[in-house]
Amino acid sequence: MGEFDLIARYFKRNTAPAQAAPAPAASLSIAKDTPGVALGIGDDCALLTPAPGQQLAISTDMLVEGRHFFADVDPAALGHKALAVNLSDLAAMGAQPLAFTLALALPPARAGDDAWMSGFARGLFALADEHRCALVGGDTTAGPLNISITVLGQVPAGQALRRDGARAGDDIWVSGTLGDARLALLALQGQLALPPDQLATLRQRLEQPTPRLALGTALRGAATSAIDLSDGLAGDLRHILNASGVGAVLDAKALRTAGATAATATGLAHARSADAGQDLQHTLTGGDDYELLFTAAPAQREAVRAAGAASATPVTRIGRIEPAQGAWLQDAQGGRQPLSDFRSFDHFA
Amino acid sequence: MGEFDLIARYFKRNTAPAQAAPAPAASLSIAKDTPGVALGIGDDCALLTPAPGQQLAISTDMLVEGRHFFADVDPAALGHKALAVNLSDLAAMGAQPLAFTLALALPPARAGDDAWMSGFARGLFALADEHRCALVGGDTTAGPLNISITVLGQVPAGQALRRDGARAGDDIWVSGTLGDARLALLALQGQLALPPDQLATLRQRLEQPTPRLALGTALRGAATSAIDLSDGLAGDLRHILNASGVGAVLDAKALRTAGATAATATGLAHARSADAGQDLQHTLTGGDDYELLFTAAPAQREAVRAAGAASATPVTRIGRIEPAQGAWLQDAQGGRQPLSDFRSFDHFA
Repeated sequence: MGEFDLIARYFKRNTAPAQAAPAPAASLSIAKDTPGVALGIGDDCALLTPAPGQQLAISTDMLVEGRHFFADVDPAALGHKALAVNLSDLAAMGAQPLAFTLALALPPARAGDDAWMSGFARGLFALADEHRCALVGGDTTAGPLNISITVLGQVPAGQALRRDGARAGDDIWVSGTLGDARLALLALQGQLALPPDQLATLRQRLEQPTPRLALGTALRGAATSAIDLSDGLAGDLRHILNASGVGAVLDAKALRTAGATAATATGLAHARSADAGQDLQHTLTGGDDYELLFTAAPAQREAVRAAGAASATPVTRIGRIEPAQGAWLQDAQGGRQPLSDFRSFDHFA
Repeated sequence: MGEFDLIARYFKRNTAPAQAAPAPAASLSIAKDTPGVALGIGDDCALLTPAPGQQLAISTDMLVEGRHFFADVDPAALGHKALAVNLSDLAAMGAQPLAFTLALALPPARAGDDAWMSGFARGLFALADEHRCALVGGDTTAGPLNISITVLGQVPAGQALRRDGARAGDDIWVSGTLGDARLALLALQGQLALPPDQLATLRQRLEQPTPRLALGTALRGAATSAIDLSDGLAGDLRHILNASGVGAVLDAKALRTAGATAATATGLAHARSADAGQDLQHTLTGGDDYELLFTAAPAQREAVRAAGAASATPVTRIGRIEPAQGAWLQDAQGGRQPLSDFRSFDHFA
């Protein structure tokens, strides 16, 4: 199968003659019918017509086999995750998805594996359709498996949730639960034993994360800054602190709550509570959570809780922004430990 | 060196404290000062503020080591080419560059090779600055060397040069010269002997192609369709014909002119003329030319020549669009050979 056949078969939907390019599923939307997309796949460039008063938000993430995912990962989960990690960046800006491009390097054996290719496309498009985000272009080539997605979204001008808006006195919040993906990774690597049903739940968190798009847009006007948690809380918080020129104190007890909410709900309390210190380590440094870390003035607490409720996303207040630079973990007795004791993930470390 | 240090050192320019992130060159522009760029590198997303009445043109190209370039290629040339092939897609739409994102998978040995990284960034930014195209975001990760760039440009709404606008009776034109990159590739592979100075000239065409941006914007309103030549004339012409539902006849003599202009100018006449049949093969199927192939009504001949002159880009009329589908090469005696006899490059063929 040639390069153009690959694109037509798996990635170009309904815009080519049906006999030449069967759509993966009949119900899938046509890219050119998506609001703002004037021209989709099949030309030198796609064309978007931005809505008046909106800014465009753009982000790029690249996933490499053996680095970001296992070679035997379910291809539908991989398709989902490749787009999810990009959508998560839009969520962290409070932006609404519009479109994405996909660059895909494939070993020839993968390109010729119809079950794998179909599964990947199915997972990718299921998430894309859920968020009305159209695939408008891309590139396929032979090479070691590599998935690079660039996503475009829109946000009303001036309302984006940036990293540089945190102010002393702001509360620090986090969505969902932290450390689930790390626990799943450890279990898959054989470093942790988990009952099969618990592993299945955590594995879904690792392999099919949920981009918090509804929460992100609901937080516009309430949050002062936001970032998505991809490398781990301790490291990602530092990006907000550096950009905003402030410091932070995290509350160890509240963090345990953020790390335990899902655990309790899904019967994972045992796995979680076996080692409280280890647990906190996962909460602070486990990557791949794709939850939102954000700040808001104390006057906005009800607005933040309302945004969480409106988007059906748990939100937990875990600390406070301080004027002096530095980041600390504080226990119930007021003792402080530097957050730099906890290391986040770094691809070249 | 960690992931964030890599970005700060080589790809984030002037926007971070100087001591933490020395800019590769003092004269380089700041991304956030580029028109339309509201927020550059360093947040979850970049933010662009589109100008009123403009559409956004988006394209993505991925380059893989060993597939698109040799492992020992000059890193500055590689940085140039990785962006050039994307800018060439903007040129083919008649769009003006705005911004780009860079996703880069690097083997740790490359990431730690300062000369290589600096050279790559230098070549990349030299071309980016020439066209006022700001690096606004991206991703770096460890992995087999892979460069994925997404470029964004703008074009007045409705004026983009698409592939589906060719009409029967239109002239077919091509810019620059064709087949240079193929000759260089053959020479580098040892399949062709060339004098060193001629190889150097052709090698520059292969490794540092010139995106025809000025010609592309000058052709707005004159050309009816356009595409950039990345896979070879014979195959890329087919994309225009399929999208427009028309056919074409190419003039063999005019094609030889398009294939020989630079050859004559640079003293390559000998290498070119040694085998006329082989020469035509290179002209029709040599990839990596990054010239523009476009169509225009005969009434626009003077306008097309003026666009070529204004952009200092040679343009040659090489054929004619016909109502009946099919693509032919016609010799001086009127004999026709199907263009499908000439195969273009396909990454999975």
